[in-house]
Amino acid sequence: MNQHSLYTSKSSIDNFKRIGIFGSTGSIGKQALEVISQHADKFSAAILTAHTNHILLIEQALKYKPELVVIVDQSKYQFVQDALAPLGIVVMSGEESLEEAASLDIYDMMLAAIVGFAGLKPTLKAIDARKSIALANKETLVVAGDIVMSNAIRNGVSIVPVDSEHSAIFQCLAGETHNKIEKIILTASGGPFLGKKPNFLVNVRREHALQHPNWSMGAKISIDSSTLMNKGLEMIEAKWLFNLRPDKIQVVVHPQSIIHSMVQFEDGSIKAQMGLPDMKLPIQYAMAFPNRINNAFPRFDFTKSSQLTFEPPDIKTFRNLHLAIQALHKGGNLPCILNAANEIVVYGFMKNLIGYLEMTEIIEKTMDKIPFIQDPTLEEYFESDAEARNFAAALVNI
Amino acid sequence: MNQHSLYTSKSSIDNFKRIGIFGSTGSIGKQALEVISQHADKFSAAILTAHTNHILLIEQALKYKPELVVIVDQSKYQFVQDALAPLGIVVMSGEESLEEAASLDIYDMMLAAIVGFAGLKPTLKAIDARKSIALANKETLVVAGDIVMSNAIRNGVSIVPVDSEHSAIFQCLAGETHNKIEKIILTASGGPFLGKKPNFLVNVRREHALQHPNWSMGAKISIDSSTLMNKGLEMIEAKWLFNLRPDKIQVVVHPQSIIHSMVQFEDGSIKAQMGLPDMKLPIQYAMAFPNRINNAFPRFDFTKSSQLTFEPPDIKTFRNLHLAIQALHKGGNLPCILNAANEIVVYGFMKNLIGYLEMTEIIEKTMDKIPFIQDPTLEEYFESDAEARNFAAALVNI
Repeated sequence: MNQHSLYTSKSSIDNFKRIGIFGSTGSIGKQALEVISQHADKFSAAILTAHTNHILLIEQALKYKPELVVIVDQSKYQFVQDALAPLGIVVMSGEESLEEAASLDIYDMMLAAIVGFAGLKPTLKAIDARKSIALANKETLVVAGDIVMSNAIRNGVSIVPVDSEHSAIFQCLAGETHNKIEKIILTASGGPFLGKKPNFLVNVRREHALQHPNWSMGAKISIDSSTLMNKGLEMIEAKWLFNLRPDKIQVVVHPQSIIHSMVQFEDGSIKAQMGLPDMKLPIQYAMAFPNRINNAFPRFDFTKSSQLTFEPPDIKTFRNLHLAIQALHKGGNLPCILNAANEIVVYGFMKNLIGYLEMTEIIEKTMDKIPFIQDPTLEEYFESDAEARNFAAALVNI
Repeated sequence: MNQHSLYTSKSSIDNFKRIGIFGSTGSIGKQALEVISQHADKFSAAILTAHTNHILLIEQALKYKPELVVIVDQSKYQFVQDALAPLGIVVMSGEESLEEAASLDIYDMMLAAIVGFAGLKPTLKAIDARKSIALANKETLVVAGDIVMSNAIRNGVSIVPVDSEHSAIFQCLAGETHNKIEKIILTASGGPFLGKKPNFLVNVRREHALQHPNWSMGAKISIDSSTLMNKGLEMIEAKWLFNLRPDKIQVVVHPQSIIHSMVQFEDGSIKAQMGLPDMKLPIQYAMAFPNRINNAFPRFDFTKSSQLTFEPPDIKTFRNLHLAIQALHKGGNLPCILNAANEIVVYGFMKNLIGYLEMTEIIEKTMDKIPFIQDPTLEEYFESDAEARNFAAALVNI
């Protein structure tokens, strides 16, 4: 590894932020790079990491000139190395390289955009290294929110959410941290199957489930949005991020996705953050926080449309949300188990190994099967995760 | 006058605020007293003032035990004095007493709830005396916003709006004062005649115009809401309160009155403040700012209803709003003239001296007639006000 270039980095002066984009070839990573190219005076991409998409990773590296790239898939290492080493870009490979990269002093803020449980370890390393975190990986908090948040607090690290819902709540809490939250209201689009019943859902195929009505997102989160599991994970994420009792977290279906979420304070006053559904806004907000940056994203126009509607979620039909609410209330390692089983069943559904409604059945069986631990250590979280994955995978026939 | 009691007041300790309610017998004043009685540990009513309603003023004074009451109508003085002097409550009378009371060191915050132009002088006195201002009297800023705001800034006085729309914007700006406002969006219910055309409006009588669909308010503001003049005055108020260019202030009709107003920042993110239409909330917020206070006001429930709709205002039909926008853009003494003429025509309409649409005609004629001054002194504002009133009154046949 070329140590040299890692120690001649631009220092963090003024408000300039060197962003480590962990998961740069995913939907969030790509949009973050768009934001960076629009604001090269404020941000650079110091680290780019990808799991397997080495072609896009190389393309991004050629354009954004990071100090370091990580290609997790070791079979792609030589290819990436050959392409980038001549430019003085350090190339690392393997799962552990993510953690090593997260610890380096060549960046200021991690954009945690790795999908799923795999994002947890690098994020913990970044917190240990006292990096700011722009958190797009909700599983980090779903799985081990207690540990992540207490580490962040101990290290004085700020975690700014990127999820549009949590970004909305975070924005609504600006200047209000001394005021008590009565509840938060997470809005849900309802996904592509809003209003449908089980007799419809049983026949849903992946092509249909991937079509989100409002948001352009990655595959995993699109499936999770269609099942409302995404909203359940968000409830758990919100519990940790905003230090809330489970009963203070409400979900409301709002099909237009204009209100991104709301906070109700103890005087009954509700604050909402709104806009067109465009992930670049919360990404930019998290990167620039506490400042806002002028941009040319399209604006929502209230005089043109418009009607905003609200209804309660149908948790009898969308039982994944019901299961997530159970996990939210019971706590311990149950959210970790829920999340692990969900990652497996979504993979299985995407591979056409199981049907749409079987996803819920397998998650529920996994939650029943894996032993409950009220107050797990980090190691126990990893064990629960592995056990849940193995159990669910057997049911999926992976 | 019993000087003694004025100098043995409770001092302002901790967060306890002694409120001077200027206009205590009006709609805002009465609701403020409700808030005070619910939070006697945080607020007292140190001053109560009324224009003519001596019966209610006495009743309020017996209940809330202020240090001082002012009954502006001197014909009622002896009656009030006889009722309250035995309790050690100082009683003053006459227009100038309001200014004298505003200067006294027996209260911490003025709730400026006098209706119309009459509220201006006492508010200026309170600012000179470095009192915090909870501003319910929008005419103060409409008429002489430049002078009022520059005096407030010079004296380090905070002006917290009570109008639900401006309170909403003020709440949305918490923690965001370093971020640029792209525009503010004032919501308007549209009033009782939303969707109506001039052929309907020409026959409107006062009883009908007084019926506001959502808000319980005083007579003057109810009429102004029905003509949309209220929204025009709010645009001018917002210009001064939030130091905005006129083109950054937009009005959107939102018949349900759940979103009380919004701010769009330069990144396109919109923040809104919402809740059931209940003036006690912004009154309480202004009095307790920067804190919020727990209360039992009914909450808006997104899972029960609900649909929020938006449409552009019909300024061709509701020409008062068009006139107000003209005054907003032209500035100088034109908003003062507009306001003076409007106070006269609303009075004339309430007395059945003129028809509904004649109100607009007379305001427009007055705006055309009274000489424009680009940068008036306070005296010139008073002169313009008087000239406009005289001219409009002649047209109304008062």
